[in-house]
Amino acid sequence: SHRYRIAVIPGDGIGREVMPEGLRCLRAAARAHGFGLDVTEFDFASADYWVRHGEMLPPDWREVLGGFDAIFFGAVGWPDVVPDHVSLWGSLLRFRRGFDQYVNLRPVRLLRGVRSPLRDHGPGDIDFVVVRENTEGEYSSIGGRIFEGTDRETVVQETVMTRTGVDRVLRYAFDLAAARPRKHLTWATKSNGISITMPYWDERATAMAGRYPDVTADSDHIDILTAKFVLRPQDYDVVVASNLFGDILSDLGPACAGTIGIAPSANINPDRTWPSLFEPVHGSAPDIAGRGIANPVGQIWSGAMMLDHLGEPDAAAQVVAAIETVLDERPEVRTPDLGGSGTTEKLGAAIADEI
Amino acid sequence: SHRYRIAVIPGDGIGREVMPEGLRCLRAAARAHGFGLDVTEFDFASADYWVRHGEMLPPDWREVLGGFDAIFFGAVGWPDVVPDHVSLWGSLLRFRRGFDQYVNLRPVRLLRGVRSPLRDHGPGDIDFVVVRENTEGEYSSIGGRIFEGTDRETVVQETVMTRTGVDRVLRYAFDLAAARPRKHLTWATKSNGISITMPYWDERATAMAGRYPDVTADSDHIDILTAKFVLRPQDYDVVVASNLFGDILSDLGPACAGTIGIAPSANINPDRTWPSLFEPVHGSAPDIAGRGIANPVGQIWSGAMMLDHLGEPDAAAQVVAAIETVLDERPEVRTPDLGGSGTTEKLGAAIADEI
Ligand SMILES: CC(C)[C@H](C(=O)O)[C@@H](O)C(=O)O
Ligand SMILES: CC(C)[C@H](C(=O)O)[C@@H](O)C(=O)O
Repeated sequence: SHRYRIAVIPGDGIGREVMPEGLRCLRAAARAHGFGLDVTEFDFASADYWVRHGEMLPPDWREVLGGFDAIFFGAVGWPDVVPDHVSLWGSLLRFRRGFDQYVNLRPVRLLRGVRSPLRDHGPGDIDFVVVRENTEGEYSSIGGRIFEGTDRETVVQETVMTRTGVDRVLRYAFDLAAARPRKHLTWATKSNGISITMPYWDERATAMAGRYPDVTADSDHIDILTAKFVLRPQDYDVVVASNLFGDILSDLGPACAGTIGIAPSANINPDRTWPSLFEPVHGSAPDIAGRGIANPVGQIWSGAMMLDHLGEPDAAAQVVAAIETVLDERPEVRTPDLGGSGTTEKLGAAIADEI
Repeated sequence: SHRYRIAVIPGDGIGREVMPEGLRCLRAAARAHGFGLDVTEFDFASADYWVRHGEMLPPDWREVLGGFDAIFFGAVGWPDVVPDHVSLWGSLLRFRRGFDQYVNLRPVRLLRGVRSPLRDHGPGDIDFVVVRENTEGEYSSIGGRIFEGTDRETVVQETVMTRTGVDRVLRYAFDLAAARPRKHLTWATKSNGISITMPYWDERATAMAGRYPDVTADSDHIDILTAKFVLRPQDYDVVVASNLFGDILSDLGPACAGTIGIAPSANINPDRTWPSLFEPVHGSAPDIAGRGIANPVGQIWSGAMMLDHLGEPDAAAQVVAAIETVLDERPEVRTPDLGGSGTTEKLGAAIADEI
């Protein structure tokens, strides 16, 4: 039977608390479906590592991680010790770029057992995927400051989009939409205000739409799109967006579906030249870290996305089904963000048992 | 008694339908409070004007409008005739910059008679103001395209922030927070991802917070901030944000408070060297234009903000009170976006009568 080599990076804060539960559920799925997991844990991409080494990653991180089948990631960031833009640009954002994980896939589903903050919506009602561009766009490191410390002080930062970068994520999103029952795609734009890059995004999306006659494609400006997520989330199926807009939509979407504590994400290199990385949407959450109450479902669901990517779709589906069953039928193990009084460990163990 | 000179620009689409109701209510307030209104209507800043002149504005627009006490604006944009980035950059965005309206003030309140899409929230519960930077930041016209039509095609757009620009909007927001009962301010950031301009924004906000010891100030990244608007809108009082983030938050906020159809905005030149401009948050809405069902409350409430700015706070308060009373007590005149079957005119007339 098949064995998969998984690099595990817990990171900071609640990343370290939810990771053991993610692994517990992966191991349960491996036993149930007869495949093996070789897990190697790494301590880099954390504030602790930064304190010891003055860097977030070892110099040979590409070689160290490049041979794994996948990377299972917790969360990074501990601003009391290292500023977020240093820790993130020094680790997670380097992985996304260095391993050319140009698709960030973030499913948004209202599960049974989870209460949406939206009045008129129940399970099944919200079910879409945010496809976020993950390597370029607004997340650039080009720019700087001039006239520092004077009244004329000015900072500039460039958004950079390439035809290669825009087209490949659009193609992925259209392929995904074409394979889903509703075959509907919405691209996020802001071409009325952001007058160069966003009209370009529209232009490429319009061209791509022409190649997918079976997909009904439309666009919304990001401002009204955030409003519509709240007012009509049922209208969305596949939502494709630039790096920044995708970041926003993939926190807002999960909030509409109950909590960002359960939202998973996959940073995918579709060409499979490098490993893909799977992580919860939530961050390291310094405010609740250390209390054992973090919701492990985002980590566990991310593990399911990893199994799917590795070629174990049945195991993946079973993990997601187990999450939903436990949240629905065992309210006593729900974590506080879901209105319960359970702990990270209790919820994780319950899901692993169910698997 | 005082007379105010108002430039009226209905613009496109539903802008033309809601403007008469805005004016009707302003006139009612003028009668009730004993001041005069000299209204001059202009047909520029519209697709019609563009078709006739190949420009959105006459060349001498600054002289034409510069002497008015205020500008009352509907909505601009008719993409079938002129691309949005052309019509907006050719009119509204030129006013904001040309008249140095560097504060865009957008109150978000859940009114009596309006149903929030959020399950656990009723009137009084959501009451905050978005203070949006309105002249610089992500809305720049610097950048361009290279290697056009090839696989190397690349587009670049610059975000530009100046100390002057950032500090003045922060100061306005802190002053506003200091004058409100809760004295709480949140600044939107994304300094973990947008690594140059957003850390700068944090730096200036932190410095400004030091000068306002009575204001409790904190920050949220824009992604989680949009999630918290849905999950905990009651936590916000004054939210200050860059041009793009403010744009997003001031559509999302009103959606959480029921509908963007009622949201007002004020593009303010606090130095009063040029006229300020008052417009609903909603756009020209081509999808519902011409049907007489657009909600006029955003326009009417914007008129109230204008009265406040002109020095008629009692009249302003009365207009807002009339809006709330009518929405609450006369469900039969509510427009379809509020779940009613009323029309633009009926709702406008009911509010004017109430005044
Ligand atoms: C139409 C558009 C350019 C404008 C903006 O983004 O500023 C609008 O959305 C607004 O909020 O006033
Ligand atoms: C931590 C931050 C840099 C990151 C991002 O903005 O990409 C996070 O918000 C995410 O969504 O993965």
